[in-house]
Amino acid sequence: MKRIFLDYAAGIDNPSSVYASGRAAKKLLDDARSRIAKILNCRAEELVFTGSGTEANNLAIFGIPEGHIVSTNIEHHSILRPLEKRGDVVFVPVEPNGIVNPQDINKAIRPDTKLVSVIYANNEIGTIQPIRAIKKAIGKVPLHTDACQAAGFLNLNVQELGVDLMTINGSKIYGPHGVGALFVRRGVKLAPQLLGGDQERGLRAGTQNPALAMAFAKALETCNTQRVTRIVKMTKLRDWFISQIPEAKLNGDAQERLPNNINLSFDDVDGEMLMLRLDLKGIEVSTGAACTVTSNEPSHVLQAIGATGGNIRITLGRDTTKKDLQQVVKILKQEVEFLRKN
Amino acid sequence: MKRIFLDYAAGIDNPSSVYASGRAAKKLLDDARSRIAKILNCRAEELVFTGSGTEANNLAIFGIPEGHIVSTNIEHHSILRPLEKRGDVVFVPVEPNGIVNPQDINKAIRPDTKLVSVIYANNEIGTIQPIRAIKKAIGKVPLHTDACQAAGFLNLNVQELGVDLMTINGSKIYGPHGVGALFVRRGVKLAPQLLGGDQERGLRAGTQNPALAMAFAKALETCNTQRVTRIVKMTKLRDWFISQIPEAKLNGDAQERLPNNINLSFDDVDGEMLMLRLDLKGIEVSTGAACTVTSNEPSHVLQAIGATGGNIRITLGRDTTKKDLQQVVKILKQEVEFLRKN
Repeated sequence: MKRIFLDYAAGIDNPSSVYASGRAAKKLLDDARSRIAKILNCRAEELVFTGSGTEANNLAIFGIPEGHIVSTNIEHHSILRPLEKRGDVVFVPVEPNGIVNPQDINKAIRPDTKLVSVIYANNEIGTIQPIRAIKKAIGKVPLHTDACQAAGFLNLNVQELGVDLMTINGSKIYGPHGVGALFVRRGVKLAPQLLGGDQERGLRAGTQNPALAMAFAKALETCNTQRVTRIVKMTKLRDWFISQIPEAKLNGDAQERLPNNINLSFDDVDGEMLMLRLDLKGIEVSTGAACTVTSNEPSHVLQAIGATGGNIRITLGRDTTKKDLQQVVKILKQEVEFLRKN
Repeated sequence: MKRIFLDYAAGIDNPSSVYASGRAAKKLLDDARSRIAKILNCRAEELVFTGSGTEANNLAIFGIPEGHIVSTNIEHHSILRPLEKRGDVVFVPVEPNGIVNPQDINKAIRPDTKLVSVIYANNEIGTIQPIRAIKKAIGKVPLHTDACQAAGFLNLNVQELGVDLMTINGSKIYGPHGVGALFVRRGVKLAPQLLGGDQERGLRAGTQNPALAMAFAKALETCNTQRVTRIVKMTKLRDWFISQIPEAKLNGDAQERLPNNINLSFDDVDGEMLMLRLDLKGIEVSTGAACTVTSNEPSHVLQAIGATGGNIRITLGRDTTKKDLQQVVKILKQEVEFLRKN
């Protein structure tokens, strides 16, 4: 039987439509949700799809009822700025190695604290926060973690981590841009921020994109399957690279960091200039988080650990080879030497 | 020269990155923005990309400073619910033909009115609102219009329309899901709702997706080029179809409606049942807006025009043929007859 679609106002593949093609779209969306839930070891209905990691982080912060929040001084801007807007927040400082002490978090808790939010692995210096220990320290206070950078490498089992809210997204794990998700543990009360239709159990209005959701699920599955191999390979490359650049100071703990993160500071070098000169030689690295490069100040993360000097961040990918890095070592040394002389 | 990408933490094709591949992504994004701006006859920097039409509508309502808002009683839920949450709003009733009287809008204006928001073409009954006349009536009060359903058919020239804010999105014009845009006239003060990075001139945080933006721009260009042909073709099909179903009452003005919209009510018929029976026969139509089908109540739009009886909405697409519609007429008549007898 030829089917005749006459619901163009709703749009094709709209998972909220109840006829056959809508139900097929819903099935695809449900399937994506279940596959992600399996990796996170949560219920499918505890996942809220969003349009980005930024949106999921905003939902986690703005969605929590009014009251006190505890966080750290190395959060991503999509946590930091919502917290600043809410107010009534304590930013617990990290140690000089870029890792927060769970007891410091616990000391900041007040009887009216509604949430603790700690980034799982920092986007600039790659340091991994002791999420499990933080949850143990704070007890029943709900814990949110921004796992966007962590998702490619670290344990995402929300039961083992003990988190009550967790942000992940597609673009950091070789998946699509334009999709993210927030795990919301059953029982956590959250107010929706985008209002309109009743999608995502009323927690996020807007027609979902089943194809994006499925691509996101598959990217996460691939990450999960290749996790161990990737960690071994990248850790080796990372540590080899760092050993080749004694001219630099490594920012953030040398062990408790993402396998792909190399964040370096060079005395007497302008980081912005170094980045631009590397770009001219065909090497693309960043200085500070990409979303705030319009500013020339050291980022709040580098300030938090007292890093000085010119900064660059090098983050490895699944296709990065040792040969690439040998070339980068050579040129980086040349450029640092040049900038120090001029 | 082989380029070596080492900014995986920012992600590939991130238009905020300042090295070569980031600049290329930015160029693509800028190009998409300019192409959309050309169709809207606005400046490129007056466009804010969002993740959906829902998000653009939410930004338009929540972004306006505190104060009184005037709207209508047939807005989409992504306008209605933000307005209800804000409060201090008047919903001006439409006439029985589903069109609001500009003078009624004007009468609702108070000295402290911060915004008027009127849907350009209604998503359920397809009625086209007199946006230009409304702007003339309200003078200097900023005017927002939700043009998501209108974008495929109506004039989007913001200078001719006189609007100060306008929402469009991709999925209603055969473009991608997951992208929308808000036109914000220079001088209109708007507070960002998603906070984080400084993207979109500080009005919407989150890494943009240049590929989605470009697909959106191209879909809009195609719509624009084919507009007249499509209007002529669909208006003819629409009016022919309506003439074949004298059993029904047409909801909304017969002339001032979208060329693809047929919204019918049948006495003594359950609309939900009719929709499901059509689905079993391979015909996919909706009853009420797709995003709220979980509810069995007549939608707020149908209530606003006093429509009674079982309701279905048929919306034609660019591939809809007269042969398809002949088949639908036949089956629809049979099903209505069956339901009236049983």
